[in-house]
Amino acid sequence: MSGIRALVFDAYGTLFDVHSVRVLCDDLWPGKGAQLTQLWRAKQLEYTWLRSLMRRYLDFSRVTEDALTCACAALGLSLDDARRARLLAAYRELATFPEVAGALAVLKASKLRLAILSNGSPTMLRPLVAHAGLGRLIGTLLSVDSKKIYKPAPAVYRLAVERLRTPKSAIGFVSSNGWDACGAKAFGFRTFWINRSGAPLDALGAVPDYVIRGLDELPALVRGPVS
Amino acid sequence: MSGIRALVFDAYGTLFDVHSVRVLCDDLWPGKGAQLTQLWRAKQLEYTWLRSLMRRYLDFSRVTEDALTCACAALGLSLDDARRARLLAAYRELATFPEVAGALAVLKASKLRLAILSNGSPTMLRPLVAHAGLGRLIGTLLSVDSKKIYKPAPAVYRLAVERLRTPKSAIGFVSSNGWDACGAKAFGFRTFWINRSGAPLDALGAVPDYVIRGLDELPALVRGPVS
Repeated sequence: MSGIRALVFDAYGTLFDVHSVRVLCDDLWPGKGAQLTQLWRAKQLEYTWLRSLMRRYLDFSRVTEDALTCACAALGLSLDDARRARLLAAYRELATFPEVAGALAVLKASKLRLAILSNGSPTMLRPLVAHAGLGRLIGTLLSVDSKKIYKPAPAVYRLAVERLRTPKSAIGFVSSNGWDACGAKAFGFRTFWINRSGAPLDALGAVPDYVIRGLDELPALVRGPVS
Repeated sequence: MSGIRALVFDAYGTLFDVHSVRVLCDDLWPGKGAQLTQLWRAKQLEYTWLRSLMRRYLDFSRVTEDALTCACAALGLSLDDARRARLLAAYRELATFPEVAGALAVLKASKLRLAILSNGSPTMLRPLVAHAGLGRLIGTLLSVDSKKIYKPAPAVYRLAVERLRTPKSAIGFVSSNGWDACGAKAFGFRTFWINRSGAPLDALGAVPDYVIRGLDELPALVRGPVS
């Protein structure tokens, strides 16, 4: 793919595995980990979309906590302050997917500019990236927090154009969240949907340019023209 | 509750049971009905929120069809044209919840103005209301389609104020969808959340004024001041 100068990555679900908190969830509520992490994530996204439409933006760390509270209540799991604190701390230390560090290193070596564009607020993102040791690979952390609206609002994707000072046609956007890849495509980025689970494509009026299985497929697709 | 002159009802999930298509789903794919109707509904709502944020509005009948396609694909269910047509036809003849007709008749008799404010496009809503025989009870059908954005965007709730020519403080809004009740409350309506399933309240920065179990609890709450 020619003309790509910067790659912008989604964080949660793309670089970082939001379901890696399942081990702790299973420790706290044996046998309930998978169900809780699924519902926690679903509610977290739902709240970002609903609050954006309602114009009631709230920081992603607060939304994440609210979603945890609601998910536990729906599943009848007792959430005390100690458990809440442990789970939210674990969310700042999510594991990366296995291929992430290697693929980012290869992309960085090919002189591409690498950035994160995330729903996460800066105070969530910085420790997450530092804990994973990705700070030296990803130079720019962009958060929706400066726009006070969540993905997939066009204003969020525009933030990358503004901050990277790069036209949208020269930006490749990478997300494992199908709806995020569609939102980025609708905005005008060239998009890579990392479909790790073989999910069907969402019907949102925009189709990602590439569908791949992991970040390790990216270098072959974008390295050529700039090497 | 004093000063309520009009009651505005959500349609899908509130008056009409979106899960009443489960019987047909189970006929078409034995044992899969509950799972399919749950995912179909979840995707339908997700697409309304995402398309609204992306500014890619598409008529609710199309969104409903897209959500069905995606839900079937995700569950590995083969959806041919005949099955699709039967399911979408069934969606225009959803059953009402048992208490709906009786409660609306009592409310109508107390001189309250009754309206529907729905995500559904007029071509979906009219046959739905007619099939259920609610046309003589509900005088006004309002659709988000005239705003080209979905709930819970404030512009949608404003539509009721404009069309009913009634101040928001004199409108009671009734929904079984917790997020819709929160959206209406954030806009400024007095809101009644019909929580039939005992779900936890979503944390969206606005709390419905009343939580009830069915429409039959409404007359006692709003009839007094106008009788």
